[in-house]
Amino acid sequence: MSHSDSAPTAPSNAMWGGRFAGGPSEIMEAINASIGFDQRLAAQDIAGSRAHAAMLAAQGILTDKDAEAIREGLLTVLSEIEAGTFRFSTKLEDIHMNVEARLIELIGEAGRRLHTGRSRNDQVATDFRLWVREQCDAAITSIEALQEALLTQAEQGADWVMPGFTHLQTAQPVTWGHHMLAYVEMLARDKSRFSDARARMNECPLGAAALAGTSFPIDREATARALGFDRPMANSLDAVSDRDFALDFLGASSILAMHLSRLSEELVIWSSAQFRFVVMSDRFSTGSSIMPQKKNPDAAELIRAKIGRIFGAQTALLMVMKGLPLAYSKDMQEDKEQVFDAADTVMLSLAAMEGMISDLTANPDALRAAAGHGFSTATDLADWLVREAGLPFRDAHHVTGTLVARAEAKGCDLPDLSLEEMQEVHGAITVSIFDVLGVDNSVASRTSYGGTAPANVRAQIARWKEKLG
Amino acid sequence: MSHSDSAPTAPSNAMWGGRFAGGPSEIMEAINASIGFDQRLAAQDIAGSRAHAAMLAAQGILTDKDAEAIREGLLTVLSEIEAGTFRFSTKLEDIHMNVEARLIELIGEAGRRLHTGRSRNDQVATDFRLWVREQCDAAITSIEALQEALLTQAEQGADWVMPGFTHLQTAQPVTWGHHMLAYVEMLARDKSRFSDARARMNECPLGAAALAGTSFPIDREATARALGFDRPMANSLDAVSDRDFALDFLGASSILAMHLSRLSEELVIWSSAQFRFVVMSDRFSTGSSIMPQKKNPDAAELIRAKIGRIFGAQTALLMVMKGLPLAYSKDMQEDKEQVFDAADTVMLSLAAMEGMISDLTANPDALRAAAGHGFSTATDLADWLVREAGLPFRDAHHVTGTLVARAEAKGCDLPDLSLEEMQEVHGAITVSIFDVLGVDNSVASRTSYGGTAPANVRAQIARWKEKLG
Amino acid sequence: MSHSDSAPTAPSNAMWGGRFAGGPSEIMEAINASIGFDQRLAAQDIAGSRAHAAMLAAQGILTDKDAEAIREGLLTVLSEIEAGTFRFSTKLEDIHMNVEARLIELIGEAGRRLHTGRSRNDQVATDFRLWVREQCDAAITSIEALQEALLTQAEQGADWVMPGFTHLQTAQPVTWGHHMLAYVEMLARDKSRFSDARARMNECPLGAAALAGTSFPIDREATARALGFDRPMANSLDAVSDRDFALDFLGASSILAMHLSRLSEELVIWSSAQFRFVVMSDRFSTGSSIMPQKKNPDAAELIRAKIGRIFGAQTALLMVMKGLPLAYSKDMQEDKEQVFDAADTVMLSLAAMEGMISDLTANPDALRAAAGHGFSTATDLADWLVREAGLPFRDAHHVTGTLVARAEAKGCDLPDLSLEEMQEVHGAITVSIFDVLGVDNSVASRTSYGGTAPANVRAQIARWKEKLG
Amino acid sequence: MSHSDSAPTAPSNAMWGGRFAGGPSEIMEAINASIGFDQRLAAQDIAGSRAHAAMLAAQGILTDKDAEAIREGLLTVLSEIEAGTFRFSTKLEDIHMNVEARLIELIGEAGRRLHTGRSRNDQVATDFRLWVREQCDAAITSIEALQEALLTQAEQGADWVMPGFTHLQTAQPVTWGHHMLAYVEMLARDKSRFSDARARMNECPLGAAALAGTSFPIDREATARALGFDRPMANSLDAVSDRDFALDFLGASSILAMHLSRLSEELVIWSSAQFRFVVMSDRFSTGSSIMPQKKNPDAAELIRAKIGRIFGAQTALLMVMKGLPLAYSKDMQEDKEQVFDAADTVMLSLAAMEGMISDLTANPDALRAAAGHGFSTATDLADWLVREAGLPFRDAHHVTGTLVARAEAKGCDLPDLSLEEMQEVHGAITVSIFDVLGVDNSVASRTSYGGTAPANVRAQIARWKEKLG
Repeated sequence: MSHSDSAPTAPSNAMWGGRFAGGPSEIMEAINASIGFDQRLAAQDIAGSRAHAAMLAAQGILTDKDAEAIREGLLTVLSEIEAGTFRFSTKLEDIHMNVEARLIELIGEAGRRLHTGRSRNDQVATDFRLWVREQCDAAITSIEALQEALLTQAEQGADWVMPGFTHLQTAQPVTWGHHMLAYVEMLARDKSRFSDARARMNECPLGAAALAGTSFPIDREATARALGFDRPMANSLDAVSDRDFALDFLGASSILAMHLSRLSEELVIWSSAQFRFVVMSDRFSTGSSIMPQKKNPDAAELIRAKIGRIFGAQTALLMVMKGLPLAYSKDMQEDKEQVFDAADTVMLSLAAMEGMISDLTANPDALRAAAGHGFSTATDLADWLVREAGLPFRDAHHVTGTLVARAEAKGCDLPDLSLEEMQEVHGAITVSIFDVLGVDNSVASRTSYGGTAPANVRAQIARWKEKLG
Repeated sequence: MSHSDSAPTAPSNAMWGGRFAGGPSEIMEAINASIGFDQRLAAQDIAGSRAHAAMLAAQGILTDKDAEAIREGLLTVLSEIEAGTFRFSTKLEDIHMNVEARLIELIGEAGRRLHTGRSRNDQVATDFRLWVREQCDAAITSIEALQEALLTQAEQGADWVMPGFTHLQTAQPVTWGHHMLAYVEMLARDKSRFSDARARMNECPLGAAALAGTSFPIDREATARALGFDRPMANSLDAVSDRDFALDFLGASSILAMHLSRLSEELVIWSSAQFRFVVMSDRFSTGSSIMPQKKNPDAAELIRAKIGRIFGAQTALLMVMKGLPLAYSKDMQEDKEQVFDAADTVMLSLAAMEGMISDLTANPDALRAAAGHGFSTATDLADWLVREAGLPFRDAHHVTGTLVARAEAKGCDLPDLSLEEMQEVHGAITVSIFDVLGVDNSVASRTSYGGTAPANVRAQIARWKEKLG
Repeated sequence: MSHSDSAPTAPSNAMWGGRFAGGPSEIMEAINASIGFDQRLAAQDIAGSRAHAAMLAAQGILTDKDAEAIREGLLTVLSEIEAGTFRFSTKLEDIHMNVEARLIELIGEAGRRLHTGRSRNDQVATDFRLWVREQCDAAITSIEALQEALLTQAEQGADWVMPGFTHLQTAQPVTWGHHMLAYVEMLARDKSRFSDARARMNECPLGAAALAGTSFPIDREATARALGFDRPMANSLDAVSDRDFALDFLGASSILAMHLSRLSEELVIWSSAQFRFVVMSDRFSTGSSIMPQKKNPDAAELIRAKIGRIFGAQTALLMVMKGLPLAYSKDMQEDKEQVFDAADTVMLSLAAMEGMISDLTANPDALRAAAGHGFSTATDLADWLVREAGLPFRDAHHVTGTLVARAEAKGCDLPDLSLEEMQEVHGAITVSIFDVLGVDNSVASRTSYGGTAPANVRAQIARWKEKLG
Repeated sequence: MSHSDSAPTAPSNAMWGGRFAGGPSEIMEAINASIGFDQRLAAQDIAGSRAHAAMLAAQGILTDKDAEAIREGLLTVLSEIEAGTFRFSTKLEDIHMNVEARLIELIGEAGRRLHTGRSRNDQVATDFRLWVREQCDAAITSIEALQEALLTQAEQGADWVMPGFTHLQTAQPVTWGHHMLAYVEMLARDKSRFSDARARMNECPLGAAALAGTSFPIDREATARALGFDRPMANSLDAVSDRDFALDFLGASSILAMHLSRLSEELVIWSSAQFRFVVMSDRFSTGSSIMPQKKNPDAAELIRAKIGRIFGAQTALLMVMKGLPLAYSKDMQEDKEQVFDAADTVMLSLAAMEGMISDLTANPDALRAAAGHGFSTATDLADWLVREAGLPFRDAHHVTGTLVARAEAKGCDLPDLSLEEMQEVHGAITVSIFDVLGVDNSVASRTSYGGTAPANVRAQIARWKEKLG
């Protein structure tokens, strides 16, 4: 937008052009006009203007007849825009002026009365806030869809054993279902971030006018209510100079994108020839122009990269806002393109990830085989020593380390050591130790709340299913 | 911490050193050890261990006697640390190992039993979360103190007229009180961000162990409750690989810092010789080594700059987390220094801003004089034409523009035009127009909710005072 | 591009589609296809292919006839694209496949021989590098134009006295010309950054093929030379996985944008009613829809904000590249939109700033008046005490501070103190001290190299004019 | 420093305290003082002051005797600082005042004459520039050491075949040596960035004084020469308000850190149980407190993370500088801690990476086995069809895709298909095709300049060895 309280100086723009002698240069038009991108706010702009007109009439500032003409005329404008027949003009700078000019063409003088008791400053703040609010809702819906895809995966493999990694080294066996549920948890926090942001932004700037409020007896509660806001914003200077709502959206998006980048990284690694933990569907893979055998996890890589784009947008807007004196500065026009691009990226990434997860085929045999390697049940051994032999954990840890070193020297895994070999290291070891060295027993034993035991996983799936309806 | 589930290979570290042949190089120690910074988590680490020990005893995993020895021993360690007599060792890498090693020195074998059913992964996650939670509380307290300082300023100058700016150009008169209240609103959103973050992070990772949970019959509800958490985290993989809470804190801090940078920019501009809107106190200014007359708004400038530092920390941590596979990776050790520095910066900035605002002397005469310049009541004139002469707003706007151009050509302000000159431009203008051209009438007329009228300002102050108690 | 060595799986894409059973989903197409933006690389893609074809023929890999047909056919494709008659297809994903497919339509089988000894990986790296190299040249040209506009301003006001600020407080008098020249210096560094980046990127990736080089006897020196590169890149893995050249461009752009943001901030402050140091031209200002008197420095504000957008792009791309294993990963497709947008922003900002500076009218009287306020010649006084009275500087500084305090208490400026008042503070002061208290004498005395004396300023202007030709 | 031309108001600070009535609050001291970090500039500060004093004497501004006393006294101060006996005082704010105050204690009145013809503004700019210049040199030295470690690896495995990846999918065989050399190339660009930055920053700000130059007849060429600068900076306003040199250092560091993050990611992946391409040395690995078998690539993970820290510093400083009016603003005091931390991180990361690479043991058998999987010679097959059977590349690509699909359906690799099976797909295939399907032949055939053929790799190693001396 350009707007807000600024308008360029083209002679053709009779609305505000009383003062300037010269016309804006081509460069100025290029840097100044916002209609190229803020036309995405058309529906919000019209909704806001319709609410404003109804309120003006209710307060006796407009006649009912004028208000009705305006409200009908705006619907016509909207239908023209939706039909693609509307002719946007750069001379008219922004969506607000484009809509208003067309309204005046359509209904005449009544249209010239619409801009009473408001300014482009509060108008654009309202439009943009409505738009971002919708995106919060859309993000929440898409997150839930992805959670459901993950739950389906989790259910299918609630007891598939796989290696749990730390440092990308095999650490302890976990279950596929448990791993999927970790992302369900992360996404739940993401959802709550969008939800918090939505609640915080749900106050209406309309009626703050340029920056000081207005002397017309407007009813800000009424317009706020009509547009689904909880209340009007309480300070007019704040109302027109605030872009926190956009930053909140971008902040929630960045953390979400970080979560998706982690899952993407795992998918890329898991689909390597060395891991073979999963196979991506053809629908979310691509081939190669020179290496015909390739099946590349492009969608995962692209989603992994999107955090750059989204956090870049957050960086951009925060930097724009740094050090701006109150109230409106034109710098703030840089808000929209960043948020538009980030929102599109969020929605596309969530949809693509949902598709990938839904289509994903895990390879339980490869998962299980990998889980058994690398002394992954060493902790179980140490815990046995504590539980059964009464060793302090630190001593048990040391004994286990010695046993692992022996196995490694022999080139075998822990269960392949003989009882005698084990007893050489610590005399309290009995044959029952072999019960805890298998991966199935290992995961089944992790029954502490939040642990990876299949029974836990199934309980968590049930809890989530109920929650998501 | 240093990594949680990792420990270096120094022969001197008998706790985990069973496996490695070599010792870590000096470089490795420098890059790996975290005790240089994570000693700030000492109190949290000890609180967590005390809760853990009590729970282990309640569950029969430790004897009551051992648990008691541990809990007492830990208090001794804490008092040593608080007294500055504790000797931190880099060989022991992190705060967890330093505390535990000293505990074992103090109480012997019982100390070696403490680390049962947990890991450094969940331990550090718990410690750090407790620390960040405290910082959320501290931020909220400091924000409220700053709000109160602003309210005091607002009360004092509820009806001081000053220019409201857009584009740093005089736009419309507002009141000093109204301008101060704009920041009270911004800070209220900041407070809600820390509050949301606190609520979201208030789940306990303790008991997630390395990443899979544990086979010991621990009671995670009990430790969560003892440490003031709402509940245990529901997924052990998520519990040890999540740093969202740190990012939430940094995100809230960045937006807060942006708000403070805006206020700082205003203070710097306002205290210039050209504006003279305010005088900063000597306590928050400095002199010059070469220009003895200077009185520099250093504190404001420094606070303006701090957004860089805080957002730099957010950038750093988000970049660290990008694309990390589950569960714990050592990369995550980079979380603490960023958050420590950002939190210190937030608290210092808030304290300094509170001091500056409390000490600030506004210059009502300069404010008022500036408010009257630059045709600042042109909108009032336009609104009069709508209200009294029935012109559509767009026509009123055009007429006003023409009158402003006349006044500018004459080198006078709007109230200096004669009635005749005005009527030449539009015949419907009457003498009552002069009533709206004064700045006091202008601000008094902005009575729409959220508007700048002194009566509104006083009502808002009253509302805020009640809210802040 | 879309990734270089990847191609989607649409049945319609006969070129690479031998392997996949399914077709890509709509979401995949949306996230994967790059033709929407990489069509900007058309000219570079065709230049690269023409050089490649000529080399293949020279090496006997293609017949001269085939190569000629390809080279002519590519010119036809280019003219179609330039004429706007080319039909881009999303199914064909990227500019490379779109051009090649059309080439094959035009010339038949010969077109199918073009992609010998290369891959999309080296092709896109070459195309994009050519594009970025052009932008370096364009940036340098635009920077020089802005330097010239600043020199014109500097020449006009080589001896206009204005306040030199530190902390936005009046510090010492300087000249307008000197202030303008400070930006000429900054821009010279910016130019050298683009120039360094250009030199560093001027190596040719073409012939690296997918990542390993090729077994065809290609001549990489020849293609490098034909495309104006200094040499071929020396490692094929590096050639396809490197995006340093894009980061270098973005890095240089960010610092340039920072410099422009500083100048913009000054223009915004200087054009405030309180400073009135400058008047912006109507061509680079806008009016207000509600406050008809406003003349807003929109272009300056927008340029001030653009650093966010440009640094956001740099953040995005660096984050994308973080932690990517070699060689090509699809993540790297996120490089182009960031660079395209940043480059457009750089060029637009430079053009708008050049226009603003060319149009700018400084107000020498206001500058001079401001320079005389605020004890701005206190340093001159201190220096006099050192030079004429032999005081150590630290003592002179203290005496000056006392004199300033006296003047401030009296409400006057330094030259308004009487000789007696001064001598009360320090007996060595004589009447000749008044010679250094005027602003003209002050600036004239700053003749040290790089100092603000008008004679220095004129010498620097002459040096710069010669340099810029 | 703290600010350069600012000094706090403590009554104890007799040097500048003439003007202020009050003393600075504790908060102000905390936010304002820089001695806590800028003491790292002690050696540079003293070198700068010594050069300044010598020049003042040569110009007749100081007596030779005073200059000699100053220069000797400064050496005493330096030796006190180096010996750790110097008492830094926060009251004296910064390194400049601490050094000067001690100098005055040591040598009396002569010390009070040192600050003639300069200011803290140019002093700190000079000190910091000297410091950053040294870091550029140090970075270059460390980069070369890492290049040498990589060359040693490359030499050892010049012909070890390994999979070349795109999308982390096996693409084509490459050699270990070739892969190592890719990083040598990246690091060469990094070196050139530090070298360019050094050249650009090598101009001396000393003598710019507060911002306007000075009326003392100083010789800036002399001090520039004495401090190893190429020339004095040409504009005094620019000299004190420029921090480009710090940003250039941070920018070069960020791209370097990105390269290191890529190599680290590879080391982490390669040392996983699934890849087993390399074994890290114990010296750069750690164990686990709960999983005794773990051997974690901590150093690689930490280096991977360091890009966050370094780019965070760059973000911080660029954001600080955004929109600052000339000349010095206190905001700029935020420059040092960011650069100090980033420089330390760069040096530590380079040293740790050099150690890791030097210690690294690759597993040629695992590399070779992995290279042979996944149809990695499909491109060789396609190239054979072009070269030997005269197929257009696009047709060859299609035929190859069909053959890969057959092999995949059969569960075998390409060389396992019989000649008959191949001929069914395309009749022109002869038995000589098997010559190109082996990985050794494949890499040996990539002899194009920059290609992976062992002969090429050895030639590049020789070139690099000569270059690095």
